[in-house]
Amino acid sequence: MSEKYILGIDVGATNIKAALVDFQGRPKHFQILLTEKERGPGHILKKLQELIVFYKEKLEKAELLQGIGLALPGSVNDTTGICAFGPNLRWKNVKVSQELKNRTGLPIKLINDANAACLGEYFFGSGRNCSNLICITIGTGIGSGFILDNKLLIGPSGAAGEAGHMVIVEDGPQCSCGRRGCLEALVSATAIVKRTREKINAGHPTLITEMIDGKHELLTTEIIAEAAAKKDELAINILQQTKEYLVTGLTNLVNLFNPEKIILGGGVIHAGDVLLKNLESEIKKSAFPTLREPLEVVPSLLGNKAGVIGAASLFFKKIKTIGG
Amino acid sequence: MSEKYILGIDVGATNIKAALVDFQGRPKHFQILLTEKERGPGHILKKLQELIVFYKEKLEKAELLQGIGLALPGSVNDTTGICAFGPNLRWKNVKVSQELKNRTGLPIKLINDANAACLGEYFFGSGRNCSNLICITIGTGIGSGFILDNKLLIGPSGAAGEAGHMVIVEDGPQCSCGRRGCLEALVSATAIVKRTREKINAGHPTLITEMIDGKHELLTTEIIAEAAAKKDELAINILQQTKEYLVTGLTNLVNLFNPEKIILGGGVIHAGDVLLKNLESEIKKSAFPTLREPLEVVPSLLGNKAGVIGAASLFFKKIKTIGG
Repeated sequence: MSEKYILGIDVGATNIKAALVDFQGRPKHFQILLTEKERGPGHILKKLQELIVFYKEKLEKAELLQGIGLALPGSVNDTTGICAFGPNLRWKNVKVSQELKNRTGLPIKLINDANAACLGEYFFGSGRNCSNLICITIGTGIGSGFILDNKLLIGPSGAAGEAGHMVIVEDGPQCSCGRRGCLEALVSATAIVKRTREKINAGHPTLITEMIDGKHELLTTEIIAEAAAKKDELAINILQQTKEYLVTGLTNLVNLFNPEKIILGGGVIHAGDVLLKNLESEIKKSAFPTLREPLEVVPSLLGNKAGVIGAASLFFKKIKTIGG
Repeated sequence: MSEKYILGIDVGATNIKAALVDFQGRPKHFQILLTEKERGPGHILKKLQELIVFYKEKLEKAELLQGIGLALPGSVNDTTGICAFGPNLRWKNVKVSQELKNRTGLPIKLINDANAACLGEYFFGSGRNCSNLICITIGTGIGSGFILDNKLLIGPSGAAGEAGHMVIVEDGPQCSCGRRGCLEALVSATAIVKRTREKINAGHPTLITEMIDGKHELLTTEIIAEAAAKKDELAINILQQTKEYLVTGLTNLVNLFNPEKIILGGGVIHAGDVLLKNLESEIKKSAFPTLREPLEVVPSLLGNKAGVIGAASLFFKKIKTIGG
């Protein structure tokens, strides 16, 4: 390999994803490691340093590695190089860029993880040739990035676009942000599993009990989706309710932002037909007539590589921001 | 008067407001007429034509009137000069600009009414020197305009920014847009009056019954506020509940848009202390830590003249848009 590369790294609360990304946005040697966030920022920084060394050695010449695009789950400032607030990592004011630059000598660019995934899809995925889009990643939590008129919405604080923390059910289930009834507390994998567990505990009959052999810690959205595919009523109801919440939340976003595309990614979108079938038409049924016209709802093209590719793209693609 | 003027006109579902606006944004001869929308688009266009003649005659020379800035309650396209959808006027595809230009010979610029109020405040009101703001007008309905990084958010359809049609109470009260539990269906004057009437009908004791002499059609937010000021429990509860909804809705907007200012206008903001006291601190308590930092919640400076001034400003102020 004598081409130039950027190392894209996407740090999540559970996993760290990484790949060498060429200047056409193609990932190579993609891998997924455990984050082990409980071991603190120092441990994660060491892990990132080791990753950089590992990828340098993959290359014919170390100089072919031109920089590190680093996506973090929190509020980051690329100018200061600081992650001010990363609740899911329990980070506060971590000087990421300086630390990594000192240790590796490579230029670092920071970006919020949801915005990285959004940029990945915008430049190389389902959002190519689209000027106004929202990228929503539904996993353990909900990440969201907004492209408005070909610019990334970051706001004056650099962290705008928290669609997961839009309340749609007043006095709904508790959310990690402190409020109740946020989209994240209703539609994330965590929320779906929690709601299902509550129903099972309340004695609702379901195939799921057998599928997980009574071990509640084995319950996942995949299993719920599998049960729904087997016509299990509880599972179907849970996913149907989740879909209604998702339609409500996405319709709110359509009425506010008027996107041409909503790109859905994350594990939950594999929860099958009950959740995703007719999603676009149901949003269009309830959104404002003049705002729903251009809308398409599409799945992520880059899947779990979107963040890595988007973070790397900061080095070879230009994006203007709104705010920041 | 030998200065040059723009005639600003702000057409609402109930009233038409108009004033001559000089190039420093100062309104003169402000007046409020009835819209009489039930008489159809032709009647309103005739009224607008008469208004233009009236204001021309106010001026020393007719040439001092340089153009008409027209705010309409709906989706407008200034390039085609058409109001595609004005639900509150029951307008559909009305060719406003061509009609008025033919009759008066003056150049016309069209804008959505909420965006006009937003521009008014941004250029000459509470939003001066602020690059990121949301302007919310709470009256019969809810209007909202967004300035992001000194640009007006209009979206690819030209009508983005419908904060009033964000659902915050799943399965809440019916909204005129077809959904349930929209901010407008909870916090607008119409919604407040409706909720109060329901409580009175259900037999809740209140001073209000006496204040309106049993005539429910006399019930207004002013009377509810007056009752609250007299420590009427029902009125206080209604306004307290309204405030909670407003905090929820505005916090959603802070988490999405990260504004530096939220400017509140419209009749409902005069409903007194119960509704507005500590609004900013309550939003800050529940919004995302990194997003609430720059926020100030302030009242409109231009009041019911914001739309007229904003519409006129299209002729002598430059604004870039996001989308459109």
